[in-house]
Amino acid sequence: MTITEKILAAHAGEERVEPGELVNCRLDLTLANDITAPVAIKEFARLGLDRVFDPERVVLVPDHFTPNKDIKSAEQCRLIREFAREFGITNYFEVGRMGIEHCLLPEQGLVLPGDLVIGADSHTCTYGALGAFATGVGSTDLAAGMALGECWFKVPESMKFIYHGRLQPWVGGKDLILYTIGDIGVDGARYRAMEFTGEAISSLSVEGRLTMCNMAIEAGAKNGIVPPDEKTVAYVEKRAKREYRLYDSDPDARYVEVREYDASSIEPQVAFPHLPENARPVSEAQGIEIDQVVIGSCTNGRIEDLRVAAKILAGKKVHQRLRVVIIPGTQEIYLQALREGLLEVFVEAGAAVSTPTCGPCLGGHMGILARGERALSTTNRNFVGRMGHPESEVYLAGPAVAAASAVAGCIVHPKEVAGDAN
Amino acid sequence: MTITEKILAAHAGEERVEPGELVNCRLDLTLANDITAPVAIKEFARLGLDRVFDPERVVLVPDHFTPNKDIKSAEQCRLIREFAREFGITNYFEVGRMGIEHCLLPEQGLVLPGDLVIGADSHTCTYGALGAFATGVGSTDLAAGMALGECWFKVPESMKFIYHGRLQPWVGGKDLILYTIGDIGVDGARYRAMEFTGEAISSLSVEGRLTMCNMAIEAGAKNGIVPPDEKTVAYVEKRAKREYRLYDSDPDARYVEVREYDASSIEPQVAFPHLPENARPVSEAQGIEIDQVVIGSCTNGRIEDLRVAAKILAGKKVHQRLRVVIIPGTQEIYLQALREGLLEVFVEAGAAVSTPTCGPCLGGHMGILARGERALSTTNRNFVGRMGHPESEVYLAGPAVAAASAVAGCIVHPKEVAGDAN
Repeated sequence: MTITEKILAAHAGEERVEPGELVNCRLDLTLANDITAPVAIKEFARLGLDRVFDPERVVLVPDHFTPNKDIKSAEQCRLIREFAREFGITNYFEVGRMGIEHCLLPEQGLVLPGDLVIGADSHTCTYGALGAFATGVGSTDLAAGMALGECWFKVPESMKFIYHGRLQPWVGGKDLILYTIGDIGVDGARYRAMEFTGEAISSLSVEGRLTMCNMAIEAGAKNGIVPPDEKTVAYVEKRAKREYRLYDSDPDARYVEVREYDASSIEPQVAFPHLPENARPVSEAQGIEIDQVVIGSCTNGRIEDLRVAAKILAGKKVHQRLRVVIIPGTQEIYLQALREGLLEVFVEAGAAVSTPTCGPCLGGHMGILARGERALSTTNRNFVGRMGHPESEVYLAGPAVAAASAVAGCIVHPKEVAGDAN
Repeated sequence: MTITEKILAAHAGEERVEPGELVNCRLDLTLANDITAPVAIKEFARLGLDRVFDPERVVLVPDHFTPNKDIKSAEQCRLIREFAREFGITNYFEVGRMGIEHCLLPEQGLVLPGDLVIGADSHTCTYGALGAFATGVGSTDLAAGMALGECWFKVPESMKFIYHGRLQPWVGGKDLILYTIGDIGVDGARYRAMEFTGEAISSLSVEGRLTMCNMAIEAGAKNGIVPPDEKTVAYVEKRAKREYRLYDSDPDARYVEVREYDASSIEPQVAFPHLPENARPVSEAQGIEIDQVVIGSCTNGRIEDLRVAAKILAGKKVHQRLRVVIIPGTQEIYLQALREGLLEVFVEAGAAVSTPTCGPCLGGHMGILARGERALSTTNRNFVGRMGHPESEVYLAGPAVAAASAVAGCIVHPKEVAGDAN
């Protein structure tokens, strides 16, 4: 079996499962945010449910429109807060003690290897980087999951991606996943498990793997997953407050498709509007003028991302024509970045540093685009109007390209601003 | 003559002016923000105006809904940005290199003693703390002012406020002005100049005086003003890039009213909903539970305010029931607060630290209240619905009361959290 099949089988109480099979699984964790939790909570009430399956395993993170951008979002957050108090939810994260959900949960040790997690957010697939099965669900499924601690799944077929070789300077997880989506398209892994392996994946930090799995959904995948290794264990060991289990795919596991890449030949990538699959080498985007740079999000708002950006921005100034918004993913990341001097670098360079929020990624707040404006962003989606006006444009890239382009005023290869040594 | 009359006379090219007289004055500076500049710019275009009176003396600060909270605010900011480029405005302040206008202009040395300044924002009266005449105007007046460098005024009558004695621990400029508005009411100084003097004013830092003059408009005043002293000169000398002139009131200057206070008897103040004049000693507000604390704004977002808040929050935690949003007034203040370790204190305590923005003060974004919620805020207005839902409440106070109450979860005297030594 593949690692995905093994986790599903274990949570279904089955010896083994087959792709296509419908299974009912025990859940280790459910997650919802300030957009989806209110829907789930109303459904929860409508069904007359009077308790959650486990108050320690229902996670609520108001992160999308917080700190509240308007009365409507304030009302949504009030509803979540009151629900959390009523049901004794221990993992409710208030403004000031929170972060972007998919940065926060791994950091807080709430998701562990071998877990089965559902979240009412499509980027829940992020947690596959820890060797967990994690996937996005609708708010009504989430309501049932919160109450019962169970959910049904159709076991996905698995696709294996093998990345050979060593990465070029300034190339990271974001570039690998953009390249991959560029290769297979936004429906290239529809309802499949994307299993990431190979030398280049082993060399990635857990942060880089979280970035990759985060965007599995952008290829239509049910989940993304990286079989856990010693880096995974090092990451979770200091955070875990409960047992966890490491799974790996069997040598004879069956894959519907195996794709192999020479990672050493992959340049930093830029996905052109208006789909993540429009990925091209940065050399083909060179010189495109931009109005705004966003560095952050559940895709690239982690400490490693901020370190890369700071390395490039140190001692430099943001180009006069543009504005830069940098959003650490969680309060812990914010604090770490502050202590390492990264925030000082950002503000000295002329960037705005926001408190953790999803903010501009989904056109929420904290940097919305006007008509005709163009952003370069480390976020995960560049759909029409995603970051503001329907006639604005979003280019996707990793933190290195974003930071370098912020200095240049147009899209450039990081080496043009910071040389080859990353 | 009073200092206010002298500045108006000098800018009208008159020997002397009398209260009630209409005078046409030369302007040293005009100011607009992302709410008012677009209106002024459209008026500017409608009148067919093709140049500003001085590209170095027209200041544009997009601070209210920035970083852009939505498409509408993004469009407003785009309009300002394009206007600034077209007319060569040197003092246009972009996101990441900006701040809240009334914190930014004094800091950048753009307003100096003896200046006459109009701004399309009611809190333009802030700059009186530097010994300037500064007042808010409508956007159409501002459009004419930007083009001509002139504006007409009716010379206001002056009221003199004398604060005797030394301030109690944890009492600052905010407490004095709330106390004063509590005494005279929100129309107590209607179309008058409020001149602040006395031992307690001399002992205040320039920051504390900026806070006081900022709220002159909350008593209906045309302007607030503090005759400049050695503190004023020390403040502006390192910032000024042009000549300035110190004015003071003559011993025989005429005041329509003189009010004297024993400042040593003034407790920290809290203004109850829904008017700033509802000021009471904090002892009468003791125990009122709050949902949100905001520390920032053009009233109390300066480094001194953040130092007071950090002194109280150091090593403590924000009460679990509430959220705290702290907003440094400018990028320079943010950087200073970061370097002094204040931001680290805030985040460790469990507060969200925002990039500079007016944000929640006017119900813009970055901490909007839901129905029934109650905020304690260092901002300047607590009108019905000011910070969000029409059924929410805002209590006004200084940073010491705000920080202490954040720890306590309800309104308290700062000494209860941090003792007597401020």
